[in-house]
Amino acid sequence: MRKLTHLICLLQLVYFPAISQQIKTAAPDMLGGVPASTNIRGAKYPLILPDHRVVFKVKAPDAQKVQIDLGKKYDLVKEQDGFWNVTTDSIGEGFHYYTLLIDAFATADPASESFYGMGRMASGIEIPFAGGDYYAMKDVPHGDIRLKKYYSTVTQSWRQMYVYTPPGYDSHNAEKYPVLYILHGGGEDERGWATQGRTDMIIDNLIAAKKAVPMLVVMPDANIGAGGFGEESLKAFEKEMEQCIIPFTEKNYRTKNTADNRALAGLSMGGINTLYTGLYHTAIFSYLGVFSSGWIVPAQNAIANAQYDYLKQNSSKINQDLRLFWLSQGGREDIAYKNGQLMLGKLDELNIKHSYYEYPGGHTWPVWRNALYHFAPLLFK
Amino acid sequence: MRKLTHLICLLQLVYFPAISQQIKTAAPDMLGGVPASTNIRGAKYPLILPDHRVVFKVKAPDAQKVQIDLGKKYDLVKEQDGFWNVTTDSIGEGFHYYTLLIDAFATADPASESFYGMGRMASGIEIPFAGGDYYAMKDVPHGDIRLKKYYSTVTQSWRQMYVYTPPGYDSHNAEKYPVLYILHGGGEDERGWATQGRTDMIIDNLIAAKKAVPMLVVMPDANIGAGGFGEESLKAFEKEMEQCIIPFTEKNYRTKNTADNRALAGLSMGGINTLYTGLYHTAIFSYLGVFSSGWIVPAQNAIANAQYDYLKQNSSKINQDLRLFWLSQGGREDIAYKNGQLMLGKLDELNIKHSYYEYPGGHTWPVWRNALYHFAPLLFK
Repeated sequence: MRKLTHLICLLQLVYFPAISQQIKTAAPDMLGGVPASTNIRGAKYPLILPDHRVVFKVKAPDAQKVQIDLGKKYDLVKEQDGFWNVTTDSIGEGFHYYTLLIDAFATADPASESFYGMGRMASGIEIPFAGGDYYAMKDVPHGDIRLKKYYSTVTQSWRQMYVYTPPGYDSHNAEKYPVLYILHGGGEDERGWATQGRTDMIIDNLIAAKKAVPMLVVMPDANIGAGGFGEESLKAFEKEMEQCIIPFTEKNYRTKNTADNRALAGLSMGGINTLYTGLYHTAIFSYLGVFSSGWIVPAQNAIANAQYDYLKQNSSKINQDLRLFWLSQGGREDIAYKNGQLMLGKLDELNIKHSYYEYPGGHTWPVWRNALYHFAPLLFK
Repeated sequence: MRKLTHLICLLQLVYFPAISQQIKTAAPDMLGGVPASTNIRGAKYPLILPDHRVVFKVKAPDAQKVQIDLGKKYDLVKEQDGFWNVTTDSIGEGFHYYTLLIDAFATADPASESFYGMGRMASGIEIPFAGGDYYAMKDVPHGDIRLKKYYSTVTQSWRQMYVYTPPGYDSHNAEKYPVLYILHGGGEDERGWATQGRTDMIIDNLIAAKKAVPMLVVMPDANIGAGGFGEESLKAFEKEMEQCIIPFTEKNYRTKNTADNRALAGLSMGGINTLYTGLYHTAIFSYLGVFSSGWIVPAQNAIANAQYDYLKQNSSKINQDLRLFWLSQGGREDIAYKNGQLMLGKLDELNIKHSYYEYPGGHTWPVWRNALYHFAPLLFK
């Protein structure tokens, strides 16, 4: 009998379509709310209200306490039927990670898609907003995102990266393209820019509007070696980039293989990698983008001071090599703000040419999508 | 102070590398166990012992009850330090979905990668086994898997599919390829064959061994219309296939556009779609693969009987059109076994030529990977 129940359960889950196999987008409900686009197929909640407050409703009859952590924690209130619910404050634009806490156990919300972030599969919610047109899916030519496996002679293991190829890549067989190498943050991996970042849509839309030139975008996994922010990890990534990622990309795709056709950028931990790999290799990259980063004080003082010495001794060469050294932050609420400002001051002091851009929103994906949107049009022109 | 704690927490999670940003594969522990390859980076548990029993260890100090559901449910035992653990029975080969139950709330295990299956983001665990060589990552030429967005004139919405392009696709610009269209099961989507299925590795290895010809593999999202197994949903998918998926593929990739260069296959719900779309369109597809399916008795009797009538009236044409009609099941333990056997009997009775293959393991991904491995070499020869 136990076996039969299990069989019926399996039958419902796998062989028969789950109830969730319904139409993904539902009509607004009585409150004018709509299911988040990040909900799994057919899930009504999380429900986004017109003022961007979010209704969460979770069935957990045996739980003692249920919370949603969206940066701020919200306690859900138990109803009589085993459901718990809460309506949040108004949530800002775009993509946010969040966590469901069942009796204080932090897990992903089964009602939402999961994304690799915060060092695990985390829930994500997409808040639509008026300024989101630049990363919207539109009727323009679309490139492909390719999942590509390669063998790393540095780590002696198979690794994978995503490669965006622009519209026309397959049909214009003689054309070669410049490449933007772009790095995720700590607790994320190569999936970050491809999914949370909406890199393909941002670049598709920019190319269609003739604001950016057609380019490849390579999104590698920057977690390498022992991980972390020590110099050993920074060196391991530098080696992986120089010995594996760039040669593999240039061997397998039609790329223009000169420094002024290579850009390197990254967010948070990826910005630190960009500072380390990029500033010491201006013969390889002519364009650098550092989003929400800055040498970490005091943990990275020794690494930073060594680099500042290098910059001082080589300022004229670096200024000549780099066609763009672009730094950005998510306003004062960005956790990297103070470190970033200290570094900007040092760059001024050392006469290293750079541009700075600020967009409020803190240390979050809406800020990094926006950074890519402003950075990409400046490349390869 | 609350804000500061939150900031430090964010700093640890996002800006600083999470502790989980460590080397992914660890040395065997004292028991000879190794972390599953499906664990997130740095997670020790689930830990697979040499005899394929699995140790789960979960920190949940406030939970009253913790279980793992791997088909069979296992109760975890609480230790003194807030951890719960259990060692399972020996688990069979390959990929299995599983669920973590925290106080009876079914969710994904934060220690594992999540996969879209069972109608939600579910945990998955990969059990290595001696026969898994055919889907292992090997030093052979590798194709790409591409994430491709297209506008469906049937659903009036943007949809996405994965497209595997074989090694050499980019460099052999004049060559055209046959196409296998392959469909996921209920509660899954286009990600199923690309991730759980290891389609790229199976086909890469087969091509390298000269057992299969180079081909494209298109993995669409078969969840369409109202979903489910009614004729309306089957018709909606048939229309999407005929009016959108095939024309889009043949427009955007270098394909051979004749029936004997098109195959259609699917598992479970996707096998039902294959029966419906495939058998009525032998002018479009010369190869059909039906994995772990069979018209569902009695729910689909009317649809099945109409098809059996059609087969009876058109048996000689169908036998002439189809170069292969291949059916498979996961042994007697496959939940589709009885329906499948009934249908096989009908095919015999109606003199419809077909091949049948059985591989034990039930209604699961190890069986479907194996089905693809045996089906793909029979195509386009």
